[in-house]
Order: sequence, then C-alpha cells, then structure tokens
Amino acid sequence: MPELPTLAQVAAAAGVSPATASRVLTGSVRVTTSTRRQVHDAISRLGYVRHRAPRGGSGRRSDLTVAVVVCEPAQRLFTEPFYARVITTTEEVLAAHGIPLTVMTAASTASTVTTPQLVSGAVDGVLLVGARDRHPLVVTLAASGIPVRSVGRPPDGVELPYVDMDNYDGGKQAAEHLLLGGRRAIAAIAGPPGLPASRDRLEGFIGTLTQAGMAGVPVAYGDFTHSSGVHAAQWLLRRMPHLDAIFAASDVMAAAAVQTLRRAGRRVPDDVAVVGFDDAPVARRTSPTLTTVRQPVEELAALAARLLLGSMGAEPGAAKHAGGNPTLPTELVVRESA
Amino acid sequence: MPELPTLAQVAAAAGVSPATASRVLTGSVRVTTSTRRQVHDAISRLGYVRHRAPRGGSGRRSDLTVAVVVCEPAQRLFTEPFYARVITTTEEVLAAHGIPLTVMTAASTASTVTTPQLVSGAVDGVLLVGARDRHPLVVTLAASGIPVRSVGRPPDGVELPYVDMDNYDGGKQAAEHLLLGGRRAIAAIAGPPGLPASRDRLEGFIGTLTQAGMAGVPVAYGDFTHSSGVHAAQWLLRRMPHLDAIFAASDVMAAAAVQTLRRAGRRVPDDVAVVGFDDAPVARRTSPTLTTVRQPVEELAALAARLLLGSMGAEPGAAKHAGGNPTLPTELVVRESA
Repeated sequence: MPELPTLAQVAAAAGVSPATASRVLTGSVRVTTSTRRQVHDAISRLGYVRHRAPRGGSGRRSDLTVAVVVCEPAQRLFTEPFYARVITTTEEVLAAHGIPLTVMTAASTASTVTTPQLVSGAVDGVLLVGARDRHPLVVTLAASGIPVRSVGRPPDGVELPYVDMDNYDGGKQAAEHLLLGGRRAIAAIAGPPGLPASRDRLEGFIGTLTQAGMAGVPVAYGDFTHSSGVHAAQWLLRRMPHLDAIFAASDVMAAAAVQTLRRAGRRVPDDVAVVGFDDAPVARRTSPTLTTVRQPVEELAALAARLLLGSMGAEPGAAKHAGGNPTLPTELVVRESA
Repeated sequence: MPELPTLAQVAAAAGVSPATASRVLTGSVRVTTSTRRQVHDAISRLGYVRHRAPRGGSGRRSDLTVAVVVCEPAQRLFTEPFYARVITTTEEVLAAHGIPLTVMTAASTASTVTTPQLVSGAVDGVLLVGARDRHPLVVTLAASGIPVRSVGRPPDGVELPYVDMDNYDGGKQAAEHLLLGGRRAIAAIAGPPGLPASRDRLEGFIGTLTQAGMAGVPVAYGDFTHSSGVHAAQWLLRRMPHLDAIFAASDVMAAAAVQTLRRAGRRVPDDVAVVGFDDAPVARRTSPTLTTVRQPVEELAALAARLLLGSMGAEPGAAKHAGGNPTLPTELVVRESA
C-alpha cells in the first residue's frame, strides 16, 4: 500500500506554499477561489487525508464548518419528510467527526442572500440538497472551488460531485408493477420538472409504458406538497375519468391522490391503483397503506456526508472514492394501494 | 429628537479605536471577547444604528451571520411544531435584512461540538431556542459577549436578554377553566423540569389549584414528545383512575393524552377534560379538537429576531428596546376537549 501523501506534497501538486495549503484546509482566513480550487483538486487527485490533533475534552472536536444547504424555503423543511431524513442523518455523521450541524436554506429567489456567506470562506464544505435547474446558487457553488457534494444529481451542465438514487429504475419498477396488475388507463403525478430526480422518475415510468405500447399517458405536475397532489389528482380525474392507476413521484402526493380519489367515490386499489415514491413514514400511515418505491434516503445522506468529508480531507479512507458519483438502487415495496 | 450616534462615538464609549469597532460590527476578523463585549455594550447604551451601503442586485444583502441555535438534536426540529414555527418566522425576518437563515443544533451532550464555532467570531448573532438548566452552551454564550437573544426565558442565573411568553398566566388560565367547568380530580402532564417555560406553566397551574383548596395534584413529566405524553397519561390513570381533567404542557402531549384516554375507555371531554398548550396546528386536527393555551410563537420569534438584529446594530429603531426583556401574553382558546 503506498504511503499517504503529506500536506507538503499536496501544496507542491497545487503549486502553492504549504502554509497556503494549510490555510485552505483550516478555513481560518480568506484564500482566493482559484487557490482554494487548486488545493482541493490536488487533495482529490492525491487522496490526501487530513490529520488533526485532538484538543482535549470527550469526543472529537473540529473547527470545520459544514453547511447542509437546502434549495427551498424553511417552511418546506418541516413539510417534506425527505429533508428531515437527510438532515437527521447528516447530523449523526458530522457529530462523529466533531463537526456541528449547520443548516441553511436557499430558496431560488433568495439565493443572492445565501451565496456570499458560502463562497466567502466561512464554510468549509457544502452538502447541497434539492439542486434544480437555473438555481443561481448551484451554478455559483460549482464555480467556487469549495468542496460540495450534491444529494441527488445536479442539473445537466453543472459540474458538481454527487450521490444519487436510481430514480429512473424506480419509475420503471412502478410502471411494471401496474402493468403486471392489469392496469391499462394509467396516469402520472410528476415532481417539479426542473429537478433531475423528478425527470428521471417520470422518464423511467413513461418509457416503460411506451415500450408496452401505451402512448399519451397524462401527466400532472406537482411540487411534492400535499395540496399539489390534490390538485394534480383532481386534474387527472377530469382529464381521464376512467383512469385505473396513478403513479405519484412522492408519498406525500400519493397520499393526497388516495384522499382525492376516495372523495371522488373511487375505491383504492379496487377502482384505481396508486403507487408512491419514497417509502416515507406516511406510506405506512395511509389507509390503504401505500405501495411505493423505496429510496434509501438515510444511506444516501450518510454516503454524501462521508464523501464530502473525504474531499475536505476530514474522513480517513473516504478520499479515494471521492472521484466517483455513486448511485444507490431503489426498490418497489408492495403494500395495499396497488 | 437627538441625532443618532456615530461609529466613532461608539468606539470612544467602548474605549477602542473606530477601526476595531468597525471590525466587531463586520465580524470579518477575530476580535477578543472582551473587546467585542465592550463594543456591543456601547452600541446598546448609545442606540447605535448600523448603516450599510447597498451592494447592487435586488433586495438587501449582508455579510452578517445569524444562527438560530436550537438546544436539541435535529430530529426534534421535525417532530416539535414549536421549532418549525420559530425557524420559519426567523427566516422571513432575516430575509428582509438580506441575512440568510442558518440553523444549528446543540443537544446538551453534543454542545462541545457547537460551542467553538459560535464563540470564534464566525457568527455575529445567536437566536437561542430551548435554553435549559445546566446546558453548557448556554453558559458559554452568556459569557462570550456575542449578541444573543433567547426565545424563552433562560435558566435562572444565566444573564442573557430574552423574549418570553406569560407561561405562568397560561397555566393559571388552564386551571381556572377546569375549575369553572366543575372538574375536581385534576392532574398535570408537565414539560421537562429543566426548562423555565415548563416550570412556569406548571407553577401557574398548580398555584391556582392550591389557592382553590386543591392540594396534592399528581404531576407526570414528559419531554413534549407524543410518546412521553402517552406514558405520562398512562401513569396518571394508574395513579388516579377517577381523574376528570388533565392539563398538558404542550398540544402534542395533550393529543397523546386524548388518544390514551380513549384507548382506556374514557370519553373526552365527558369523562375527562383535556387542556393543551401551544395552539399548534395539531390542536385543530385532533378529535375532539383541543382546548388549549395559545402562545403567539410567530410574534415571539419575530420580536426576538428584531431585537437581536437591533443589538447587532442591523435593525434601525430596534436598538432602543434592546435593554428590556418583553413578555407576550398567552390566551385560553376553548374548543371541544375541555
């Protein structure tokens, strides 16, 4: 096994002095963006592992700041279970490294407010959640040279390391399950089209139905909220009164579809089958319980946090994986609704 | 009206150079704790209002970092509606000042992880939520000289500015309502005894019952979670099988009590009246709906954020109020459960 590179070797590879490389790692003073990027590139190439002297007290402590940046207003943190699962898991991983949890919100319209802090050197690493098309912060982060790991694939054309779920395959599994169940009048409630995960789920779903000879599948777009799920289901019922199946791109929207279908006098799953996506806690609380596509959110968030720490030089052993963008599998969970 | 003081006057009053005073305000370099405190004391005394040149783009932008620090693990952010209400409101107030929302968690056992960042100068102001007895971070913050405003009164002996609700009067109103309703076998589910708000609610409640000649009221302690409410209600039913009223120190625990009472064959409110505390959204979703003590959480959080910004010199007009610790009233809301 080759020896681990030293900070001096990282500095040499980056073309900066060891003192400058050290300042980039400690984040204690401002360093130019291009210098920061050179050093982090060298760290990734060489697989440098940062060693840190323990500073007394119980447990490890660190001066590193890692921000979980959610590209949504704060209100969504509390209504979308995906964010709770990501944030709770990240807190655990960071705590094991003596790093406090910092969460920042950056709604698309307000991102000019968040950007300066993130790129000024006050933050040593960013776990990016919910990155979508044309979000100004996402583009800025990609150009900043700050270590970033996106939870979910970033928009096309944005070069950021990420971890992802196999959302396309999840949509495919949902379609196959409905086809095998004999459903033939199938509709979809998709997530926001600007979010890569939404597009992948829809493409996997529609592509599979198309291959089975089913064209012109009606699609209503929601934004993952309950109320958008209600509106989407109402729209689909008007558009296709005799529909016999709905695939919704999140469990919250699937639960809203079930509620809307029942209020419209449809039995689930007898008249209309419903498949959700997430396997969030709500999937077990609905009546009937939701058949859904499980995404391993906790595993994904933990992996993203460890890879981010690796690219910051804070996670021994993780740096060697930091170059790849792993994709975790999704899995159909059959319950009562389909 | 006297003219507003200048930064030079603040510096003179603090006994530091104008350049040092400016550095404290911009937070851009590390300044000793005692210097920072001198400058902020001078700002509070003189009512200095920081003026900031706009830096282009739409809306105001700021380099200030304000952290909402919640003294709990992240998981509680998503299960206790109080935190969602505080954080969502704070985001709005900060956004109006061009300041991004930053949330940090600091469970009592993990606060050594959070403390270094907060006192190192990386954060310009702290909105402290859930401060309780013997929490090491609370004591450190009080000694740090960083502008802090506590949402809720801090523990006795900790000198921090705060905003509070009249929790004592809320407990009193709950007791009076149950007494007027003819209830005579009354029990309480209290919050954590280390939290001043919990103690105030319980003291207001018990004090009123004692004055009415009712001694030895059984009290079960919960931690504001649903499961603790279930356990507390079960314990009270064993201790006092013929109880005819329960006051719970949060709506989540009150909803858990209603559920537990019904499972034990008690009708609410016919057999047992239940009064909650919060007027959280859950109070309208239970069956029967909850009679509860409303605390104006959004108003409290907005006031706390504005007073904090005032003490940081970022909120014109607020600095003159920064010396007081306002208490907002609570109000009984009568619905079906009592």
